Amino acid sequence: MKVAVVGVGLIGGSVGLAARQRLGAHVVGYDPSAGALEAAIARGAIAEACSTVQAAVADADFAFVAAPVHVLADVVADVLAVAGPQCVTTDVGSVKRAVSEAVSNPRFIGGHPLAGAETSGVEHARADLFTDATWYLTPTPQTEGTAYERLHRFITRIGAWPTAVEPETHDVIMASVSHLPHVLANVLVAQAANVLGDERLPATGPSFRDVTRVAGANSAVWGGIYAANADALVAAIDDLVARLSKVREQLASADAAGIREWNDGAREDRRRLLETGLAGGEVHELRVLVPNRPGIVAEIALALGRATIDIVDMGLYPSAGSHGTVALWIRGGVVAQQAERLVRELGLEVVRA
Amino acid sequence: MKVAVVGVGLIGGSVGLAARQRLGAHVVGYDPSAGALEAAIARGAIAEACSTVQAAVADADFAFVAAPVHVLADVVADVLAVAGPQCVTTDVGSVKRAVSEAVSNPRFIGGHPLAGAETSGVEHARADLFTDATWYLTPTPQTEGTAYERLHRFITRIGAWPTAVEPETHDVIMASVSHLPHVLANVLVAQAANVLGDERLPATGPSFRDVTRVAGANSAVWGGIYAANADALVAAIDDLVARLSKVREQLASADAAGIREWNDGAREDRRRLLETGLAGGEVHELRVLVPNRPGIVAEIALALGRATIDIVDMGLYPSAGSHGTVALWIRGGVVAQQAERLVRELGLEVVRA
Repeated sequence: MKVAVVGVGLIGGSVGLAARQRLGAHVVGYDPSAGALEAAIARGAIAEACSTVQAAVADADFAFVAAPVHVLADVVADVLAVAGPQCVTTDVGSVKRAVSEAVSNPRFIGGHPLAGAETSGVEHARADLFTDATWYLTPTPQTEGTAYERLHRFITRIGAWPTAVEPETHDVIMASVSHLPHVLANVLVAQAANVLGDERLPATGPSFRDVTRVAGANSAVWGGIYAANADALVAAIDDLVARLSKVREQLASADAAGIREWNDGAREDRRRLLETGLAGGEVHELRVLVPNRPGIVAEIALALGRATIDIVDMGLYPSAGSHGTVALWIRGGVVAQQAERLVRELGLEVVRA
Repeated sequence: MKVAVVGVGLIGGSVGLAARQRLGAHVVGYDPSAGALEAAIARGAIAEACSTVQAAVADADFAFVAAPVHVLADVVADVLAVAGPQCVTTDVGSVKRAVSEAVSNPRFIGGHPLAGAETSGVEHARADLFTDATWYLTPTPQTEGTAYERLHRFITRIGAWPTAVEPETHDVIMASVSHLPHVLANVLVAQAANVLGDERLPATGPSFRDVTRVAGANSAVWGGIYAANADALVAAIDDLVARLSKVREQLASADAAGIREWNDGAREDRRRLLETGLAGGEVHELRVLVPNRPGIVAEIALALGRATIDIVDMGLYPSAGSHGTVALWIRGGVVAQQAERLVRELGLEVVRA
């Protein structure tokens, strides 16, 4: 089996490594950057570097396009123009509607693995990057059944879970749970910077830091994502503004009952989303009061680690005072109780949220 | 010196403990809940429980009102009605304009210590809760100079840093960096729950979880805060919507340069806010690729703790795959390099963001 990787960054390189190690494939790569190709060879992500797309794709059974989203449709078209009839072509872009609309080919299926978002570069590629990861596939009515089946099997064999979804649905979901939060982070820091002027950011607890942690994410990547998913993102902004307007009216009219209902609903929404989506079970929150000193997080994490208790989510809230708070989300009531006991045994106070 | 604490929860109780331990004050308490008074005695937060506000405030040198924000102005008025001419009265509410406008008394000064936001209840009160914490004070033109000076000294002596601010400015800042992020968290989870329906929340990286972590915060507390700061919060929502509208136009008109400039600006805003406000120095971000197993956070935290390297902020981003990411924010370039080296020595990959 020959696999062509067009664009050898973190994702493309990891596809290459997985295909070589798990499927024994012959993997070749193309990239406009000669340095990236060299690094991919050095990492073992590809066996052979090609100087043209055509050379890479010739006789390939699979072509994975891992190019920036703003050039995705063009690169996919280039690949399809030179790919043989046996070649299944896919991409790994995080926006799916544009490429699905631009390309109408029975042997092309859009794809988006949910992995590797936090880093980039082939030097961090790994064969197990996709193990147990969701890998969205966006087949269309034109998609050839055998092409889909072959790609599905490939993805399963490198350890991921293929999940078919409409391109539009994919983009709407991503706009809501990923792209819009990034927009809000940006808008919020800009507003705060304006309000504060030269004043220090007050130590007001977790909310501001958490909400703005992703502010100003890599412009090279995110500029392309925003542009490619502009339609869904605009719709998500409109929906958010409508929701904000409703809250604004409740605030302006002192509708205490409405505010409470809205706030209670949000708590329920988050719990349900966390439980069904992220952790696969009932999630309990512990808040631990900790002295502000190095090593305290280690003590807690170590105590839980020794008991093989997994931390689903963690928030670290230092304060200017002598003590801060560490919030821990633990899956399962019994396990959370055990975690609470272990933390108390460290001499720390625990508050169940 | 006699100190009356009206409302013996976490903050009131901690004022009591600090006044007793650090200033040797005679501290009495009033609370509508008999159970809270008992707990305050048990914790040592007050020496004496009073059954009326009048009994508590009689002959007091200081009265601290630590009541929920929606009754704050009324309770302050009750206290002032029975307080003697020597008594300086203050409150600890997280919204300041309403009480400042309702109360016009030369011996009342509004206050807001930035501490204890993550927990509640007198059983978690501590004498050092306010150590090195900012304590906003909102004097007005009516405020008696000696009253302000005495309160300032009291707060300094229990270890906090009094900072004078206009009540309006205080509320605008809080709306921007605390109240609005809570509103956005609520709105965003509701929107995502609607978009996802019964689908699982995709594992899309840190943004959604971070932004929504404070969703549905305690309605008893937050309902009052939203209501009391409704004006500033409505203005903050309007400003945010205006900023969102601008981004929306840039997206809709495919203004790539504008989007990039906006995104770069947000990165710069957050870095500057973090550096000047939170950490007091240049902050560096390290991203560590970690295998998804219990104890890994402990190993990292412990390695840094041993070297007495403080973690300014931390984000934990598990993924469905074999590896997740831990983001660490470390103060100081040299220290961050040392941290990076220590983490690499654990056999982990580090990416400088």
